[in-house]
Amino acid sequence: MSAIMMSGKALAEEMNSEMLEMVNNLKTKGITPGLVVLLVGEDQASQTYVRNKAKRAEKLGVHSLVKRYPNTITEEELLNEIDRFNRDADFHGILVQLPLPKQINAEKVVNAVDSKKDVDGFHPLNMGKLLIGKPDKIACTPYGIMKLLKRHQIEIAGKTAVVIGRSTIVGKPMAQLLLMNDATVTMAHSKTQNLAEVARTADILVVAIGRGNFVTKEFIKPGAVVIDVGMNRDADGKLIGDIKADEVAKVAGYLTPVPGGVGPMTITMLMYQTIESAKRI
Amino acid sequence: MSAIMMSGKALAEEMNSEMLEMVNNLKTKGITPGLVVLLVGEDQASQTYVRNKAKRAEKLGVHSLVKRYPNTITEEELLNEIDRFNRDADFHGILVQLPLPKQINAEKVVNAVDSKKDVDGFHPLNMGKLLIGKPDKIACTPYGIMKLLKRHQIEIAGKTAVVIGRSTIVGKPMAQLLLMNDATVTMAHSKTQNLAEVARTADILVVAIGRGNFVTKEFIKPGAVVIDVGMNRDADGKLIGDIKADEVAKVAGYLTPVPGGVGPMTITMLMYQTIESAKRI
Repeated sequence: MSAIMMSGKALAEEMNSEMLEMVNNLKTKGITPGLVVLLVGEDQASQTYVRNKAKRAEKLGVHSLVKRYPNTITEEELLNEIDRFNRDADFHGILVQLPLPKQINAEKVVNAVDSKKDVDGFHPLNMGKLLIGKPDKIACTPYGIMKLLKRHQIEIAGKTAVVIGRSTIVGKPMAQLLLMNDATVTMAHSKTQNLAEVARTADILVVAIGRGNFVTKEFIKPGAVVIDVGMNRDADGKLIGDIKADEVAKVAGYLTPVPGGVGPMTITMLMYQTIESAKRI
Repeated sequence: MSAIMMSGKALAEEMNSEMLEMVNNLKTKGITPGLVVLLVGEDQASQTYVRNKAKRAEKLGVHSLVKRYPNTITEEELLNEIDRFNRDADFHGILVQLPLPKQINAEKVVNAVDSKKDVDGFHPLNMGKLLIGKPDKIACTPYGIMKLLKRHQIEIAGKTAVVIGRSTIVGKPMAQLLLMNDATVTMAHSKTQNLAEVARTADILVVAIGRGNFVTKEFIKPGAVVIDVGMNRDADGKLIGDIKADEVAKVAGYLTPVPGGVGPMTITMLMYQTIESAKRI
């Protein structure tokens, strides 16, 4: 027996077609969805991420602009730029690529983005709407995982879900989304005792801890749906997840591969929320 | 063996002394903490709640104003009133007594209160700050429960906590506060299967479901800390909690009574947050 692989790559492709149609519809109404990405400094990883986002936007007919600023930009200057894009009707999504240089308070910058244009879903107002159960913009990674679960018609209501990892951008919003869908949700983390035992109660297990191959078959209830959010490099520089895929695949019912599982969904949901944001104007 | 009773009444008294001192300190600096309560219509229960809040404020030297509006007030008129108090430096806390009449969108009204004056902790921005783990104003009932746990030196880190009930004003913020304190937290609710079994994993069990005597001894891990948020009336009109106290007290290590447990903490934290809000001006 081997787990069914849940391909984020395949779903992203499906959603691309759907989004292309959404964009074309908008264009017939004279609206072109626009996304501006603010990039400060020369961080290599950030450059790559931003390039990928711009490429994807272009593929979907979303107008994208990458605004580059020197590493020496002041907080005030950056806040002024955000204010400008908040008021610019051509852009329905604003993304500030993190990390930011030390002289800038990242929290303040994230909070300055108009929550309606916060297509990343990181703004505290959007986090609050999610906690209240009336989400608007949603953090892209957990939102993408929900899409994957729905695509595979995974039943969530009444099920036991365990989320390992409590980051603001993955674990916490993930737990709220599962709760909204009537799962009984346990939030586990580095201070959790008997972590394998807790994980083994899960019909749906989401792992986002950033430790390569950490989750072994002892963590898995037979037949469980297992979601691997990890993106780690092994000693050889190979991309690996938080889950020891080879052995877990023999116990789980469903599993997301790394790469090609959760990864492709994050950028997909970023585009999706940008287009949705444009629809509401 | 019988559970140690965690008296909210006693802690509220202690905190009253502390708060009196805080208010006196503020007054020497020329600041009098101010709370305005907006009351629409003639709802009997609301009248009582508002009276109690005003009485408590007076006792602590907090300036309080109860603004009454007829049941026929429009949403726009009420929003204008809120705007006025948002800008009135004499008031550090604004509380809109719920429920509101049908013609008024309660969500819109709650969102209109300046989040810095949202001493109830219901504003989505405050909910979001809590989810992010950087709380400002916190929903008063769960905040009061945290004070009770700390007062009794209950260890939270690494413990298993179960919250039954997922309301916006109790269950959800409660789960976040326990998580922030490094508990492993399960959010359970009406759709949870094997609820007693889930509850029995809890070192700390918080019950907020609004069903009298629902939780029996079968739900309790021996020695657990059990918090009863329920306020129900039995057939004779007597106030009872969600927990069958007589039998649970024989199994639990700690238990909050009803009345006199969680109840007195809610209004206490409302005052506390009003005073804290005044300190920051």
